[in-house]
Amino acid sequence: MMGDNEGRRTPLLNLGVQVSMRVLTIGAAMASMWVMITNREVASVYGIAFEAKYSYSSAFRYLVYAQIAVCAATLFTLVWACLAVRRRGLVFALFFFDLLTTLTAISAFSAAFAEGYVGKYGNKQAGWLPICGYVHGYCSRVTISLAMSFASFILLFILTVLTASAARHY
Amino acid sequence: MMGDNEGRRTPLLNLGVQVSMRVLTIGAAMASMWVMITNREVASVYGIAFEAKYSYSSAFRYLVYAQIAVCAATLFTLVWACLAVRRRGLVFALFFFDLLTTLTAISAFSAAFAEGYVGKYGNKQAGWLPICGYVHGYCSRVTISLAMSFASFILLFILTVLTASAARHY
Repeated sequence: MMGDNEGRRTPLLNLGVQVSMRVLTIGAAMASMWVMITNREVASVYGIAFEAKYSYSSAFRYLVYAQIAVCAATLFTLVWACLAVRRRGLVFALFFFDLLTTLTAISAFSAAFAEGYVGKYGNKQAGWLPICGYVHGYCSRVTISLAMSFASFILLFILTVLTASAARHY
Repeated sequence: MMGDNEGRRTPLLNLGVQVSMRVLTIGAAMASMWVMITNREVASVYGIAFEAKYSYSSAFRYLVYAQIAVCAATLFTLVWACLAVRRRGLVFALFFFDLLTTLTAISAFSAAFAEGYVGKYGNKQAGWLPICGYVHGYCSRVTISLAMSFASFILLFILTVLTASAARHY
């Protein structure tokens, strides 16, 4: 199967770029997930113990699950890009997979950012008080986790455009 | 310029599908924006007037701005698809534009959904009480607006895949 293109010199999907960017994406997504999972702080508010954990926020839980999915999907497409880079049809399918992963990454980032924003600034009209004043360390780590998840999104976005472009040459 | 492909029978970007889907996308995005902008309810909570308006939520404001951007971008790509459907390079650029619009749509939907989720279920650990029990009508309209913004995202997602696929044939 692999041999049928041997004679024709086909423009390669730049494998080096694909592999390095996918490894970076997996690294950023794992780091974002790890920082969020290990994020916990206990503070005392008017003498009452106040605990902040990522699992107390549905949007942060979504971010963690999404980063796990991004890691798994990108690992899969890393192998895919290596094995099937010459298969015409498969490069478009690779693009489609990258598109889904990118949409998952931006969706999770946006949801977590929205809830983090409320945590930092509160919502006066809804009566939701900001919490970052009490658990400053917790909020800083949320910010780091969000920044890394946005980095994995940017890498995936570039990969999506690259594979869409490559799909035209195959 | 338009004439140079006359001789060669090029597989057209299916203009009918492109135009109808883009018109539907604009309709869904405008409806989502309109329902959110006109969404307002006043309730009495323990004798105190409690007003719910979309502009009190940063994520809902983001949704409105994003839907305006989606409308403008899709109107632009509607004209683009009509005029430049045969230009090889331009179809890939059309894909890139669709990709950016799709990412904006899912990002805004996810952020608004996250904040809407807190409005409906609250966050006990953060001390944020749910508000939908007091302003039920307001929350129902938020749900409608979110549903329509998700519909515009799905249409844009399909358009992105179609133009990426078409870019391979031009």
